[in-house]
Amino acid sequence: MASVAVVGAGMMGTAFCVPCADAGHEVRLVGTPLDAAIIDALKAGRAHPGLGVSLAASVQCFDVEQLGSALASVDAVVLGVSSAGIEWAARALASALSEAPRPVLMLSKGLELGARGLSVLTDAFEHGIEQAVGSRRAMHPVSVCGPCIAGELARRVPTQVVFTGRQPEVARRFAEWVGTPYYHVRVQADVVGVQVCAALKNAFALGVGLASGLHESAGGERGSVAMHNYEAAVFAQAVLEMQLLVARLGGEPATAAGLAGSGDLMVTCNGGRTGRFGALLGRGIGTGEAIRRMQGATLECLEVLAVLDRALSQREAPVRRDEVPLLSHLIAIGLHGAAPDMPFGAFARP
Amino acid sequence: MASVAVVGAGMMGTAFCVPCADAGHEVRLVGTPLDAAIIDALKAGRAHPGLGVSLAASVQCFDVEQLGSALASVDAVVLGVSSAGIEWAARALASALSEAPRPVLMLSKGLELGARGLSVLTDAFEHGIEQAVGSRRAMHPVSVCGPCIAGELARRVPTQVVFTGRQPEVARRFAEWVGTPYYHVRVQADVVGVQVCAALKNAFALGVGLASGLHESAGGERGSVAMHNYEAAVFAQAVLEMQLLVARLGGEPATAAGLAGSGDLMVTCNGGRTGRFGALLGRGIGTGEAIRRMQGATLECLEVLAVLDRALSQREAPVRRDEVPLLSHLIAIGLHGAAPDMPFGAFARP
Repeated sequence: MASVAVVGAGMMGTAFCVPCADAGHEVRLVGTPLDAAIIDALKAGRAHPGLGVSLAASVQCFDVEQLGSALASVDAVVLGVSSAGIEWAARALASALSEAPRPVLMLSKGLELGARGLSVLTDAFEHGIEQAVGSRRAMHPVSVCGPCIAGELARRVPTQVVFTGRQPEVARRFAEWVGTPYYHVRVQADVVGVQVCAALKNAFALGVGLASGLHESAGGERGSVAMHNYEAAVFAQAVLEMQLLVARLGGEPATAAGLAGSGDLMVTCNGGRTGRFGALLGRGIGTGEAIRRMQGATLECLEVLAVLDRALSQREAPVRRDEVPLLSHLIAIGLHGAAPDMPFGAFARP
Repeated sequence: MASVAVVGAGMMGTAFCVPCADAGHEVRLVGTPLDAAIIDALKAGRAHPGLGVSLAASVQCFDVEQLGSALASVDAVVLGVSSAGIEWAARALASALSEAPRPVLMLSKGLELGARGLSVLTDAFEHGIEQAVGSRRAMHPVSVCGPCIAGELARRVPTQVVFTGRQPEVARRFAEWVGTPYYHVRVQADVVGVQVCAALKNAFALGVGLASGLHESAGGERGSVAMHNYEAAVFAQAVLEMQLLVARLGGEPATAAGLAGSGDLMVTCNGGRTGRFGALLGRGIGTGEAIRRMQGATLECLEVLAVLDRALSQREAPVRRDEVPLLSHLIAIGLHGAAPDMPFGAFARP
């Protein structure tokens, strides 16, 4: 039994407390500056407003002001912030983690574009800590990827995920700590490929989601005859473009075919907000109005498309735009107001 | 412009007439001995009973008794029979195809287990023709694979498929013949891998489908929080096991990640009867009762599971059962009455 602080009380951070507590650990859930209302609800024994699930009484909840005391003496730290919160987290955790180094597990997904090109978030967080404390720190955070809808994990739906990190033994130790009969963890060595897939799947799920919106605006109804052929063609092209991007960024292309790639893309299409957002765009609703209708949900797809659009414009771009016709079209739709007109003819040979 | 005979007036054979006719060809649709009622309906100008779609008046319909006259002088033959109909088709077409050899395009999907182990259907059909005419005939049929729900193709939903054959130039000629603005054809050289994926996807879609049945019997409703994590873990494992089986049978494992593999699996999960059948089994309904509730729909998943079960029992089996834990469990559920108990812990490292 260990003590674990989960920093970030959003959907995923909170859901992660469930297997952690079920595995018998002492769990401390700490809100970020954005999570005050959530922590209030949980402290009062009410359900998490987003998840609709209450936590076990053994999980202790802390406001962001109590971060220091929450972190004191825990054996490990889990980071449950969104990609946009990585910078805040690095500053907030730097002194605690440099005074008493602890293994860090990251639930965040995304890519960061910096002076050295695109970075995966474990590297970005490590770099952020170094900036904050002014010296080199080999932290080797472990990343959690693979198909996991937070609302399902919180309800103990069978789930299989990937842990990856530059020190595989730390990833393995985390896997042993939090594995439960419903939370199955695979440790994989491809730190870059796994995290690149986790970021890209949001972009590509937008493309698969277009189909149901196009179908709906053509007067169609949901069912077994809809625009599933369109969805599947986009899905397969997405896996191929993920393989190419993973390879160019230094990962293993085979990763994109497995749990972190095709599996995570599948779950994002079927259960994620990105698919619903794509359906709105497929209906011909513009990006601005579609964002409004998503009622403030975090749209990682637009964040990752924006990062990739900038990366693809650089002189040292990892791929040419014509090598990734699907991704290029999604950038045009999501960021530049283009209407969906899927370039099937340009799709790479399977 | 060419003249084409489509033999088999089931859902897929009939749907294939739509791009064929739209591409400007003279199309003759010929029923098998099982298709009398369908041909009657189409001849009377009514909709296809399964598809709910009427054909263009330019498509001529023929009974099985008129097969000889229908085949006379056509430039190409399209085979729209199920895998169980391959043997009949080889006997029925042998003399016409040996007297006047014509390129053959096959819409059938499946695997055949013979004295030489597992065969893809293009090889099985070629072998059947040889048996019927008593001499070696290099026919090199072309196979159509990839994600294509017949009811969507008949409604001109954007669709992307793979044509593959042992003579790539014949596959390319067919692709030029039938490509339309909504029917996109990719020619791929991996004859074995593409067809193995087309057969296996039915088996694996059964596994993905279990999740919605399990969710339903636990009292859950359809929605973004269901058992999508379970579905996605099974989906990713399916792609990995397809890669392994493709490799062992002499194909290219990369094929399983693309249109013929992950794409076709995706469409079968979302729109196919196999997924609905899997959901019934997931609800704990036995195979016999589930078959009854599918009201006579062809269940390719059970056919391919039975072929694989026999192949895996042979001394020269292409894989050991413990190398394909998902497939082995699906065989146990679909054929031997086992209850769903997904072996996530045995799933291969992604």
